[in-house]
Amino acid sequence: MTDVKPSIEQVPGFRVAGVAAGLKKNNALDMTLIVSDAPCTAAGVFTTNHMKAAPVLFDMEQLQGNKNHIRAVTVNTKCANACTGEQGLANAREMARLTAEKIGIGADEVLVMSTGVIGSQLPMEKIAHGIELASGSLGGDWAAAAAGIMTTDTRPKEAYAQVTTASGATYHIAGIAKGAGMIAPNMATMLGVVVTDVSLPADTAKGLLQSASETTFNRVVVDGDMSTNDTLLLLANGVSGVTLQSPEEFTAFHEALTAVCRKLAQDIVRDGEGVTKFITLTVKGAPSPEAAHQIANTIATSPLVKTAFFGNDANWGRIVAAAGRAGINIVPEYVKLWITPGEIEAATDESLLLFTNGMPTAYSEEQATAIFKNASVSILLDCGAGLGSSTVWTCDLSHDYVSINGDYRS
Amino acid sequence: MTDVKPSIEQVPGFRVAGVAAGLKKNNALDMTLIVSDAPCTAAGVFTTNHMKAAPVLFDMEQLQGNKNHIRAVTVNTKCANACTGEQGLANAREMARLTAEKIGIGADEVLVMSTGVIGSQLPMEKIAHGIELASGSLGGDWAAAAAGIMTTDTRPKEAYAQVTTASGATYHIAGIAKGAGMIAPNMATMLGVVVTDVSLPADTAKGLLQSASETTFNRVVVDGDMSTNDTLLLLANGVSGVTLQSPEEFTAFHEALTAVCRKLAQDIVRDGEGVTKFITLTVKGAPSPEAAHQIANTIATSPLVKTAFFGNDANWGRIVAAAGRAGINIVPEYVKLWITPGEIEAATDESLLLFTNGMPTAYSEEQATAIFKNASVSILLDCGAGLGSSTVWTCDLSHDYVSINGDYRS
Repeated sequence: MTDVKPSIEQVPGFRVAGVAAGLKKNNALDMTLIVSDAPCTAAGVFTTNHMKAAPVLFDMEQLQGNKNHIRAVTVNTKCANACTGEQGLANAREMARLTAEKIGIGADEVLVMSTGVIGSQLPMEKIAHGIELASGSLGGDWAAAAAGIMTTDTRPKEAYAQVTTASGATYHIAGIAKGAGMIAPNMATMLGVVVTDVSLPADTAKGLLQSASETTFNRVVVDGDMSTNDTLLLLANGVSGVTLQSPEEFTAFHEALTAVCRKLAQDIVRDGEGVTKFITLTVKGAPSPEAAHQIANTIATSPLVKTAFFGNDANWGRIVAAAGRAGINIVPEYVKLWITPGEIEAATDESLLLFTNGMPTAYSEEQATAIFKNASVSILLDCGAGLGSSTVWTCDLSHDYVSINGDYRS
Repeated sequence: MTDVKPSIEQVPGFRVAGVAAGLKKNNALDMTLIVSDAPCTAAGVFTTNHMKAAPVLFDMEQLQGNKNHIRAVTVNTKCANACTGEQGLANAREMARLTAEKIGIGADEVLVMSTGVIGSQLPMEKIAHGIELASGSLGGDWAAAAAGIMTTDTRPKEAYAQVTTASGATYHIAGIAKGAGMIAPNMATMLGVVVTDVSLPADTAKGLLQSASETTFNRVVVDGDMSTNDTLLLLANGVSGVTLQSPEEFTAFHEALTAVCRKLAQDIVRDGEGVTKFITLTVKGAPSPEAAHQIANTIATSPLVKTAFFGNDANWGRIVAAAGRAGINIVPEYVKLWITPGEIEAATDESLLLFTNGMPTAYSEEQATAIFKNASVSILLDCGAGLGSSTVWTCDLSHDYVSINGDYRS
């Protein structure tokens, strides 16, 4: 039995801290430390950007050498440590070494994450100060840990699942994430850490994490930009004593992990830069799932579609035009388009059919606008040409997005 | 010798009209008619969108059957006649038939173009009225013809070249275009018509038009959206008596045609929806021209890059991050990035090097911002990994873009 909750209660064997190291102004939380009392198996999913930030390169190397004995993750905001050359790599290493020193573990047992502006070197004095503060205040304050990794996020993102096995044992999965901008369909989270007290071989952890991120973090689109720093980590310390053994147990874990990742991924969209509307966009009837995803992604990244969402405009014309340029051979006469209030991946009694037989229906513009005025709107595009389907979660493009990003560095 | 001018003087044998048919409010010009006294060879380049509008399907068919005997082009605004099914195709045919009837030619000698909102049927009474008005006022008013095809454009776009051959003969090339939104790298113009009084075989016309559009219209990026209606037509009536014969003469024509198309394409960017800044973005040192174009296009369509342009922010971090996610294998340490005021495809004495050796240089932020405050800024990204290069013309993403497109249909 799985119980999913929006806020994290406890994950035995993990202690956390979110502190103000002086990276942000006004004494805001800006660094987070997660420590496991027992060694963890660990896995990571990283940005496929060719301009990988130093912490990404560092973690990839660290996990190659020591995926069965990770003890801590240190995260800083305000500075992405990206495009920082040899000095940046040295600083990422130093960030791990300082963490290890403060909590009395090996430097090869620490992973690091950075987020913020590209191209500045880490302010290592403040980083050292933050690590010292955090290592001295480790405890159960996951809300602070979630807050300590935020950049332009307006609220912390956390998710929590408690799973009870058939034999009555219990284990936990907790995750925190940050998003806001540079959110694209390839490894969409900016930063995310998921921890569990189940016992899990590192290679299994990697496979499950990849699969879970494929259907969650990789399905959210804020602006189509993919960051230099995107990282999702999974740490499993085995403290619960539960070792997954049967297919049923693996399935239950996979489902709970996916639920935690989905909650975090959707929160990233809901809190995207300048977002006023949450869109559940499903493309079905495509020649393949990949084709469906390509169409969904083309629609979700179209500035014309996204500004129409912002204007509460049921502009199906821009949606089908975007579908038409996705590079997939679709036949206009087979295409159907519905809108529905809420978050749903199918057509229901509440759905309004806007387009069929290559033309708009005689739908009521008033009714369409009423649906689009909801904070959550679902769009279903049926290509009528196969069994492939894909759902992405996306948002509108607003004045605030332009303001936030036209003025980010100042 | 080629003389390129911003406004059209005359092209012997062509008469035009721009009229107010009542499609737009306030008696604004909303339909354009171009008529040749002599039959023209004609060629077209069309949107690759799978949701092709009725006039696109009609013209493609018309040119297949009658590419050596075209006499007129009729254009309407406000209604794109896209996603309009059989009725839309019938209306496109009727628009051609009405034109033919009014000017006394065959219905198979007319091409039609439509631009505007997707999904409405053409208001055929107004269209008929406009054709009647236009056919009665044909003359040399190219400014009115350019104005009659505008939608959210703020100013008409025209270009003109006069070419004198080695033997002293003279011919002309004139073009009008409309753009503003839904401008993407695949067949970027919304609508464009180029006419010439040179004599040109239809197949040659097609090849030259494709080549010219490849390096002009297909290099402009406003928002990355590709329309259902994008059409570029070339009509050659041969009235000048000049028939291109030598390689030199073909080259001169090709260059003049490209110059006309480049002027129109750049005007489309300059007048893009909400544009405050004109960016000349060159990627060189890529493994191939296609790879260079893919990188340039990824940068030019990035909302984060475009909002930074709007904010006068020399945010090289977002530019190299976009380059890194373009799917081309680039090595950060080989990449160099310069910015230069004006419109230039190379680095000069005025250029500022922002990024090299995988890191930002110690450039002056004040100097970078000063360059970015120009109305025209050039960006040069050298991947250091080959001979492929590509230049695109693009713009910023502003509040006005969001306003215009959040509220287009109302």
